[in-house]
Amino acid sequence: MTASTVSNNPLPVMHPVAGLRLGTTCAGIKQEGRRDVVLMALAEGTQVAAVFTRNAFCAAPVHICRSHLSQTAPRYLLTNTGNANAGTGEPGMRDGLACCEAVAQAAGCAPEAVLPFSTGVIGESLPVEKICAAVPAALDVLDEDGWDDAAHGILTTDTVPKGASTQVTIDGKTVTVTGIAKGSGMIRPDMATMLAYIATDAEVAQPVLQACLEQAVNRSFNRITVDGDTSTNDSCVLMATGQSALSIDEAEGPAFEALCVAVTDVCELLAQAIVRDGEGATKLISIDVQGGRDSEECLQVAYAIAHSPLVKTAFFASDPNWGRILAVVGRAGLADLDIDAVQLFLDDVCIVRDGGRAAEYTEEAGQAVMNRDEISVCVVLGRGEACEQVWTCDFSYDYVRINAEYRT
Amino acid sequence: MTASTVSNNPLPVMHPVAGLRLGTTCAGIKQEGRRDVVLMALAEGTQVAAVFTRNAFCAAPVHICRSHLSQTAPRYLLTNTGNANAGTGEPGMRDGLACCEAVAQAAGCAPEAVLPFSTGVIGESLPVEKICAAVPAALDVLDEDGWDDAAHGILTTDTVPKGASTQVTIDGKTVTVTGIAKGSGMIRPDMATMLAYIATDAEVAQPVLQACLEQAVNRSFNRITVDGDTSTNDSCVLMATGQSALSIDEAEGPAFEALCVAVTDVCELLAQAIVRDGEGATKLISIDVQGGRDSEECLQVAYAIAHSPLVKTAFFASDPNWGRILAVVGRAGLADLDIDAVQLFLDDVCIVRDGGRAAEYTEEAGQAVMNRDEISVCVVLGRGEACEQVWTCDFSYDYVRINAEYRT
Repeated sequence: MTASTVSNNPLPVMHPVAGLRLGTTCAGIKQEGRRDVVLMALAEGTQVAAVFTRNAFCAAPVHICRSHLSQTAPRYLLTNTGNANAGTGEPGMRDGLACCEAVAQAAGCAPEAVLPFSTGVIGESLPVEKICAAVPAALDVLDEDGWDDAAHGILTTDTVPKGASTQVTIDGKTVTVTGIAKGSGMIRPDMATMLAYIATDAEVAQPVLQACLEQAVNRSFNRITVDGDTSTNDSCVLMATGQSALSIDEAEGPAFEALCVAVTDVCELLAQAIVRDGEGATKLISIDVQGGRDSEECLQVAYAIAHSPLVKTAFFASDPNWGRILAVVGRAGLADLDIDAVQLFLDDVCIVRDGGRAAEYTEEAGQAVMNRDEISVCVVLGRGEACEQVWTCDFSYDYVRINAEYRT
Repeated sequence: MTASTVSNNPLPVMHPVAGLRLGTTCAGIKQEGRRDVVLMALAEGTQVAAVFTRNAFCAAPVHICRSHLSQTAPRYLLTNTGNANAGTGEPGMRDGLACCEAVAQAAGCAPEAVLPFSTGVIGESLPVEKICAAVPAALDVLDEDGWDDAAHGILTTDTVPKGASTQVTIDGKTVTVTGIAKGSGMIRPDMATMLAYIATDAEVAQPVLQACLEQAVNRSFNRITVDGDTSTNDSCVLMATGQSALSIDEAEGPAFEALCVAVTDVCELLAQAIVRDGEGATKLISIDVQGGRDSEECLQVAYAIAHSPLVKTAFFASDPNWGRILAVVGRAGLADLDIDAVQLFLDDVCIVRDGGRAAEYTEEAGQAVMNRDEISVCVVLGRGEACEQVWTCDFSYDYVRINAEYRT
């Protein structure tokens, strides 16, 4: 397969997905002329799977999505940026439903067939009139080639649009998987990231599609963190229009596994793109923890490293300050950890062995790795067979600036 | 009682503790002319209680202290700054013991009667020769009035010395409690903070003294966090010289409780002084979580808020961005949390009630609190009777600068 890579570059070629049209417009929510409303229209028969934030403080649109998904098959997805409609209580629910109603009236469908998504500032009232007024314009520009515009239209503090697209052959049939995502702060997804939309033209039964999405998300969006803060609005949607020749009915077998790999690849690229564009980020850091007793303790160590401000500022400074990493491993809460058995690598350079600096380690070798833009930290616990990987970024002046100035 | 307050001000009056002398000198460990070695000499019969880091990656001096405490009564405490002697493996143990040996030879005691403490950079060899060469000078200047110099001599990235001193009357007898501490980064103590030394002239049996220390530490050093990173060298020592008229034999009763209150007061002032001087800190933030089912879940919420980079940067910007605080409460992992029952206060201003902004809340009222140097965040969970309090600071450009430049 050929998956286009995502980095701080222009979007890759975004293969359209037959049966899915996208329309992007400007509602003037925060700034005049900024693309801030995206409408997606799904052909009849499209199956939709979705996962949402597990934050107990979840936003009105998440509640509405869950309710609508339980009632009928979605035909439209409406996204606004600039306002998260979170922490808005009962009025926020009414506002979200009013937006769905506006789409239903303009497009001629049931309000329950509309899924609303919001992202932006928390605790302010949704500008319902502006969003509803923008719906006809979005309908007017619906297009299967609308992915690029939509990738821009869902952004908030992001500095670049994030998209990934792949075409694979399964059972001799060509299948497309294309997706977009946004997010660069309040990123430690727990079920799904801020907002991500992935579509395929395969025909997939809904429970099978949900299984595919959950498997992909657990290996991608649920393995990234910028700042450890799980958003109130995380939503990830996988849509299958069924317009290619491939049909999958069961959540097992080679065709299902092949589709899962393609969806996971797209999700991983999108997830890494979010970390690369993490607020203030200058480096992409992959953290591999190996030799743990189980997956849980590997993740415990990996996230402890990924969230340590001392480690993240050292990466920003390109300082091979391995003592800070080892100190985090030591405090990560693993029972009976023998710190003298732990090994630590930066890329292919071994830094720590037998509880201290490796004999062959030189500051120059560590420095050479640290100067790179993409760095792998590998911790070998030496007490089991489990391994896990998470991705994060460094912690810079700009992270402080962006978040200190966010509401001004 | 009168406890002198500690803030970014000169040290308070430091009452000497009869039976404890302190000598501070310059060994030239990192900079010529900087005070970096402190020796404390304990009168015969002094009882010593201590708690240490629970980080599995703990430094050589912590191992040596534990071993020496199990062998004999300490007569000297030797502290060096500029080098933590952590991550130094077996050679680090030999280096730490060599320093104890130097004190033993110069002072005429057993090496096991010397407790070593180190703080500074991790992973570099201890400059044993410089430290040993400085011991005679430290012995020469031992003085019961040496607290001020010692408070300076134990600092690393700290910008101010931290001391607290109180005199109380128990059973009609005057008792002094005086202490010093250091630390401003890698601060989330788990048993004790980076380095703290507290002394009293009361006569207290060792197990009673240990009980008193653990009670005090749990309400002070174990309730602060700057960056969530538990140090490798955390050590806190409570010494009782027994030279006042008061004698306490049991870990119960009014005299024991009164001593615990005095020691806890001193520890709390020192712990708060560490947070006030947290790397880059501009604000002291107290986080009160009330109405929890148990103490554990209150601490879970309180630490999640205290460690959130989004919350800490909002405090730095004096931005009453309450949505971020509520989002942290929602992701803190409490089972069955009803977010609509949660109330949020900044000082005396109610911001959140019924899942959204309180009707009477105004941005001006929130802003007025945020402009203060010391701010209390109160989260009322509304599901029980438990409450807990932790202290932290904000997250500024300077935190990033200090930690990015630490080793340069």
